[in-house]
Amino acid sequence: MLKEAIYHKPANNYAYSYDKETLHIRLRAKKGDLTKVYLIFGDPYKWTKEGWANQTKPMSLEGSDELFDYWFIEVKPEFRRMRYGFELHSENESIVYGERGFKDRDPKETNFYFCFPFLNEIDVFGAPEWVKDTVWYQIFPERFANGDSELDPKGTLPWGSCDPKPDSFFGGDFQGIIDHIDHIVELGITGIYFTPIFKATTNHKYDTIDYLEIDPQFGDKETFKKLVETCHENGIRVMLDAVFNHSGFYFDAFQDVLEKQEKSQYKDWFHLREFPVTPLPEPNYDTFAFTHMMPKLNTENLEVKEYLLTVGRYWIEEFNIDGWRLDVANEVDHQFWREFRTAVKSVNPDVYILGEIWHDSMPWLQGDQFDAVMNYPFTEATLDYIAKDEINAEQFAEQLTSVLTSYPKNVNEAAFNLLGSHDTARILTISNDNKEKLKLLFLFQLSFIGSPCIYYGDEFGVTGGNDPGCRKCMPWEKEDQDQELFSFVKKVVALRKEFPAFGNHGEFNMIETNRNTNHIIYSKQAGNETIIIAINNSNESINVNIPYDFTGKQPVDLWNQEPMKENSNIELGAYGFQVIQVK
Amino acid sequence: MLKEAIYHKPANNYAYSYDKETLHIRLRAKKGDLTKVYLIFGDPYKWTKEGWANQTKPMSLEGSDELFDYWFIEVKPEFRRMRYGFELHSENESIVYGERGFKDRDPKETNFYFCFPFLNEIDVFGAPEWVKDTVWYQIFPERFANGDSELDPKGTLPWGSCDPKPDSFFGGDFQGIIDHIDHIVELGITGIYFTPIFKATTNHKYDTIDYLEIDPQFGDKETFKKLVETCHENGIRVMLDAVFNHSGFYFDAFQDVLEKQEKSQYKDWFHLREFPVTPLPEPNYDTFAFTHMMPKLNTENLEVKEYLLTVGRYWIEEFNIDGWRLDVANEVDHQFWREFRTAVKSVNPDVYILGEIWHDSMPWLQGDQFDAVMNYPFTEATLDYIAKDEINAEQFAEQLTSVLTSYPKNVNEAAFNLLGSHDTARILTISNDNKEKLKLLFLFQLSFIGSPCIYYGDEFGVTGGNDPGCRKCMPWEKEDQDQELFSFVKKVVALRKEFPAFGNHGEFNMIETNRNTNHIIYSKQAGNETIIIAINNSNESINVNIPYDFTGKQPVDLWNQEPMKENSNIELGAYGFQVIQVK
Repeated sequence: MLKEAIYHKPANNYAYSYDKETLHIRLRAKKGDLTKVYLIFGDPYKWTKEGWANQTKPMSLEGSDELFDYWFIEVKPEFRRMRYGFELHSENESIVYGERGFKDRDPKETNFYFCFPFLNEIDVFGAPEWVKDTVWYQIFPERFANGDSELDPKGTLPWGSCDPKPDSFFGGDFQGIIDHIDHIVELGITGIYFTPIFKATTNHKYDTIDYLEIDPQFGDKETFKKLVETCHENGIRVMLDAVFNHSGFYFDAFQDVLEKQEKSQYKDWFHLREFPVTPLPEPNYDTFAFTHMMPKLNTENLEVKEYLLTVGRYWIEEFNIDGWRLDVANEVDHQFWREFRTAVKSVNPDVYILGEIWHDSMPWLQGDQFDAVMNYPFTEATLDYIAKDEINAEQFAEQLTSVLTSYPKNVNEAAFNLLGSHDTARILTISNDNKEKLKLLFLFQLSFIGSPCIYYGDEFGVTGGNDPGCRKCMPWEKEDQDQELFSFVKKVVALRKEFPAFGNHGEFNMIETNRNTNHIIYSKQAGNETIIIAINNSNESINVNIPYDFTGKQPVDLWNQEPMKENSNIELGAYGFQVIQVK
Repeated sequence: MLKEAIYHKPANNYAYSYDKETLHIRLRAKKGDLTKVYLIFGDPYKWTKEGWANQTKPMSLEGSDELFDYWFIEVKPEFRRMRYGFELHSENESIVYGERGFKDRDPKETNFYFCFPFLNEIDVFGAPEWVKDTVWYQIFPERFANGDSELDPKGTLPWGSCDPKPDSFFGGDFQGIIDHIDHIVELGITGIYFTPIFKATTNHKYDTIDYLEIDPQFGDKETFKKLVETCHENGIRVMLDAVFNHSGFYFDAFQDVLEKQEKSQYKDWFHLREFPVTPLPEPNYDTFAFTHMMPKLNTENLEVKEYLLTVGRYWIEEFNIDGWRLDVANEVDHQFWREFRTAVKSVNPDVYILGEIWHDSMPWLQGDQFDAVMNYPFTEATLDYIAKDEINAEQFAEQLTSVLTSYPKNVNEAAFNLLGSHDTARILTISNDNKEKLKLLFLFQLSFIGSPCIYYGDEFGVTGGNDPGCRKCMPWEKEDQDQELFSFVKKVVALRKEFPAFGNHGEFNMIETNRNTNHIIYSKQAGNETIIIAINNSNESINVNIPYDFTGKQPVDLWNQEPMKENSNIELGAYGFQVIQVK
């Protein structure tokens, strides 16, 4: 047995409360090394009474990544507290593992074991329930639709007349979104994430001038209120983008600093390294990246904190928004986010807090800060397999195990699963313009665990490279819209909404991968319903046997709404797929 | 290279801010596997500009435990943010390790690497500075000294007239402590930790009746104020014991529940499972362990929270106490402790918050909750080696590495390092009444990293088994006090106070261990001063060579205050030791 590979900590993704009575325990071991794993557990205060641990229960193999197997078990300790260890079996060895290391058999001293001291409900990670059933749509407001040409900034170009440049304006606005709400409803969307809408100078508005004002090119507060109401009437939640890491250069407080220097009352609002404060050639203050136009806000300063928390509350209190997406969230202090959570949840506990973090985010997802992060590790794995052919089916399965085992299950269920955004090239472009691949991407994304988000226009097959290419105007002429693709996406969204097992309520299991044919087969199970999805990510037809016991079942081809002819053997065309329902 | 053994996470003890400009990075690998490790690092936003990582720097081997080596480096990234990976060398292989796994050489994509997104000062773990230089003394007030016989509870026994039973009273009180402050001062103590002093029924007072009243057997608030003032005048800080996990059975709120049941306004103050609430034969409410006399408080309830936070502030505001030791801290919710920290630090940011946790405590030591925990893993390792002979010198070194690498360095510096307490048998008893071993225990404890605590009476060689044996009356008759031992302890405390390297300011390095002779030699280095301590934990004399280059140095035998005759070769008697100063 390879002891060096065995890992457990009584915290984070390895031990956590799933709900107010349930603990999840996970153990990592070398791939293929262990044949059986048992959890040894008992009440910390009854343990010694009985002399030995009270119970052992078998754990199940949850999945594998490149190097490791992950074993998992769910337990409900009677008094909400638990000491525990692991009984590990390989082919020729059995040992016991606890906080104090390895022993030949289970010692009676409780301090040998790991401790989950108490399951306090308030510490349970709790994202809003509605997020699990939401299908998001991301709108970059400048490029979605121009509904009020009177608001057009100077130099606005005719809608879609050319590819966007970094400083192009096409006049997208709130009225345009209201006018096209039917399209969003038809797609089946239940949540919109808007990139910034507050007063700023750029087309992307990430350089905020005033966090309490709408940018005039989008409309006024009246129109915004109407937009939120229109969304809500159509069962669509609204999430705004909070750019609290840095302000824009023309934010009043920063302008005051530039003007009054040491004498500015706002000098502690930023991280100034010296006076006089000078933006060029290199800013002598902290910024986002090295962009002098984006001075970093000092979120440790009490005035800044109070101002930003007011902003956080204001748009919920006054406009009833349902979520905040936090830009560059990882560079702002944890203490600020804890206070931010307390502030916004005190107005509405059902507000979704989503952080922009591209790397491992466990420190922000402990229940005291965010409800979710943008799940880029999911994005990368999925694009690498389906869009780019950079990894094969087996490697994809390994990377998904990595993604899923990196976090608690309740965190995964609220994760913001995007395929593309305003920060990345269009997924059709990444897929080499292969629309069949694009369909597989949507099918996989929408049948996976998490809260999926579609970037505006991807449903019509809009193309484009990295920023600014990925920010093209939404095509509103029928002939520029891929209607067949649109119908496809609509149908997948509908499946997610109709069948709980298809979406977030189904337990995900990869049941077959093949690196040669490059196909995957996975199941989603909820109650007595199982949905099996087979994806052939190759340009050749294949014939596969579904590794599932259909005895006594009547499987249905859910995509074509007809009974399956041959249960277990199916034909998958090039880039083909099948969605099977078993009850 | 054994990839399965390699471990790093950009959080907790593996990556943390040591101060407002310094990051500490640690990597774990299989013991003996790697020959060299380099940190590859750069600014996240300059990385791609240069095409590759900006810098590499060698890491040092920090120590080893049973299975692993730990590599460590300190860096000060110019813009307080960093992407990083590790270049790993074994005898015949070199690979690069990052958040996305292993590669043959360092990829240019920053998302391959680990990320420390920003060093925000407010998130730096910050225990009060004074704790690093404090030598604690733990007093169990009922047993330290009886200074006012008028306060004696009914049935009080003559001082020290017999061994204590679970329900004995000997009349210890505040006046007794004031009367004997000279003893504490003479020992060199700079902080006292008092077990509970609030109104309760038992001799240990862990069953609080009123958190805002002094137990009358100890005195009144006037006397307590005098006690705190006496301590402060003598340069001694005062820490009280906060029993917030549970109240006593006779706490008014719980009595109200028992009396009025469903109609009690306090019914949500506890975790009641059903009505009628009945304590016996088994309590049908949550308790500490299964003790019906200690109903668990519902610290999620806003009224309870407000009450306990008021208590937390009250004794600081009114009596100027310097610390809170939190009983059964691990079973109370994290959210409560975050608010507790905010509340007490708002009154005095220099208050020390110490949690009673016996197991791995990283989740409580992230800067938002406690300043320290009671370092029982240190206690166990030290007693197992010196007092019990259960592990040898090599294993001791391994366990110390485990203890030290489990936490950030700034956490270790504030750790509450005890050898014994009211919850464990007397250390002389554990040492089989071997006073030479007891001396080695004190020498090691007081020269180690952390904030050491001496349990009252250990300095006089008081004996006793587990509770109640370890709670004997303090001997005040000269003939009952081991004066030689007392002088020894006094001398070690004095060394810690006089020589920064001896105490918390010296970097600890185990420089030799030998499992056959069972001796250890370690160094403590601060600036240009190094203190080398050799401990012979065996009943035979040994001759050892100090593995240190004394060329051009004039080492001093610090214990005997004389120049060393022979620099590197020394004789250590049975259970002997030597303390060498090198400048």
